[in-house]
Amino acid sequence: MHTTDICVIGAGPVGLFSVFEAGLLKMRCHLMDALPQVGGQLSEIYPQKPIYDIPGYPEVKAQQLVDNLMQQIAPFQPSFTLGERVAQIQGNAADGFTVTTGDGTAVSCKVIVIAGGLGCFEPRKPVIERLEDFEGKGVSYIVKDPELFRDKEIILAGGGDSALDWTILLSGIAAKVTLVHRGDTFRGAPDSAEKVFRLAKDGKIGLVLKSNISRIEGNGHLKNVHITDDKNGVSILNADHLIPLFGLSPKLGPIADWGLQIEKSAIAVQTTDYATNIPGIYAIGDINTYPGKLKLILCGFHEAAMMAQSAFRYVYPDQRLSFKYTTVNGIHSF
Amino acid sequence: MHTTDICVIGAGPVGLFSVFEAGLLKMRCHLMDALPQVGGQLSEIYPQKPIYDIPGYPEVKAQQLVDNLMQQIAPFQPSFTLGERVAQIQGNAADGFTVTTGDGTAVSCKVIVIAGGLGCFEPRKPVIERLEDFEGKGVSYIVKDPELFRDKEIILAGGGDSALDWTILLSGIAAKVTLVHRGDTFRGAPDSAEKVFRLAKDGKIGLVLKSNISRIEGNGHLKNVHITDDKNGVSILNADHLIPLFGLSPKLGPIADWGLQIEKSAIAVQTTDYATNIPGIYAIGDINTYPGKLKLILCGFHEAAMMAQSAFRYVYPDQRLSFKYTTVNGIHSF
Repeated sequence: MHTTDICVIGAGPVGLFSVFEAGLLKMRCHLMDALPQVGGQLSEIYPQKPIYDIPGYPEVKAQQLVDNLMQQIAPFQPSFTLGERVAQIQGNAADGFTVTTGDGTAVSCKVIVIAGGLGCFEPRKPVIERLEDFEGKGVSYIVKDPELFRDKEIILAGGGDSALDWTILLSGIAAKVTLVHRGDTFRGAPDSAEKVFRLAKDGKIGLVLKSNISRIEGNGHLKNVHITDDKNGVSILNADHLIPLFGLSPKLGPIADWGLQIEKSAIAVQTTDYATNIPGIYAIGDINTYPGKLKLILCGFHEAAMMAQSAFRYVYPDQRLSFKYTTVNGIHSF
Repeated sequence: MHTTDICVIGAGPVGLFSVFEAGLLKMRCHLMDALPQVGGQLSEIYPQKPIYDIPGYPEVKAQQLVDNLMQQIAPFQPSFTLGERVAQIQGNAADGFTVTTGDGTAVSCKVIVIAGGLGCFEPRKPVIERLEDFEGKGVSYIVKDPELFRDKEIILAGGGDSALDWTILLSGIAAKVTLVHRGDTFRGAPDSAEKVFRLAKDGKIGLVLKSNISRIEGNGHLKNVHITDDKNGVSILNADHLIPLFGLSPKLGPIADWGLQIEKSAIAVQTTDYATNIPGIYAIGDINTYPGKLKLILCGFHEAAMMAQSAFRYVYPDQRLSFKYTTVNGIHSF
């Protein structure tokens, strides 16, 4: 049985930064993640991809950000249970909680912070016959490493930012890129849509609007994709890869059974401290929702800071909280 | 007359990052600051001081963070009016605003973002006869450059984090450090207080509790400081420098007259988008207040992101907002 102040479920960037904010208030954290390494989707899905919207970083590779966060929290000596999925929580804020994984690892803590991120979501799959048969054999729902598509013929499907962004990026890498979209306008950012239209006009990508993927074929690996337009015209394109990008839907797993208030498939929290409806349990990062919620890493960082201030009263019920800046002495005195 | 989408008052880190979040939504910003350079207090007060609580930066010098932010926002081509103080705002969200400085520079905009930070605050001064006479001649209220105190005899006064932190830091730089505090417990972080008590026990600093600075003397420059204890015992210490650290009080200046709702000497905002009570005017960073507010740069970054989403409807009233991640293509397409 591990014993800690705060059990953080989810060791992505927001979970990791929680250790820092908790540490400043002398609270120790144990982090748990179903993935075998820290960093969440940054390490799992796109370690080499640059991120542009972390304040103060004009550009930083995802894994580099994770490495930096690990360095930042190291003085607070977090402990980890990785590669195990949380199965159960028991207890309450007054008596303490016990978090148990499917493998039987148990953590005793005073506060639980659910910092589940994108990993709690799964791709929405289009309805295409035999789609699953080709998963990993030409069909993928995320772009883990763009280099895998170098000099290949690629078909993307979707009308949101993901579809637009990857179309633009892969147009410079793949031999041929075709974007298929059921509408003729895009949900994604206006400037991305403009860029895609311009690429199509310049003959650098194929753009097939008001159309759907109706059938896929291949022998052991994807080979052809049938595209049906609004008027039932069918065209057949060669394709090494099909990437349907229709967004994500959440899979909360056992979290859904803990009595937490769920809204829009996310955990409802209050904005003063990102507390859930259960005292002593917080939810920060992509897994929570509140009015105006943005699923940005930087918002999760803010949520972690606010959470820590509030969690303090569960960990140190008899102490007055002192708000402290690190600017002067750094964090080595903590 | 400058014309822009968003006029950001305050070019500190949070004001600067607003340009990025606005830019992602194709909104342009003009920034105004009373200081002659960007970066706010980071550049003005402690450019060479390391900051430890910016997520992803185990340590970053204040000016480096400002430089990085400037690089991050450069693609969005912000414009600046520096070294001028905003004197007046006119107009409204429907017709647009005009922001005018005391020097007569005018900016026409659709949205105003008040990103005033610590610069809107001034030090609280203790009541000591002739204190003002020694300002700049041994008496200072902020530590701009710790090196100025190398090998000097220093007296600090106060019981909060600032007093504790600077006592700890200067104990390694100054010839002699004495901390004077009217109480015998500290408001600051428990661990900092512990460290100060340990330094005193080890003879590395002087610690004078239940006492006040009652008188200062010198001839052109500070020389002696009288310390009076609870029992009216007076001791006189030599001192090259006296640093009273009793916190800051806000000076909102003309902002106080704009009809904005003020609470706790800060601008009250709602947490969905950090909007003030006046439509089209937002307040982010240290100048705002809301339940749970933390005066941290990282919280200001989050507020900037939320603000931009909301400001969009004033800048592009007919467009649907599209939320977009930068992870894929970076920001060069904006």
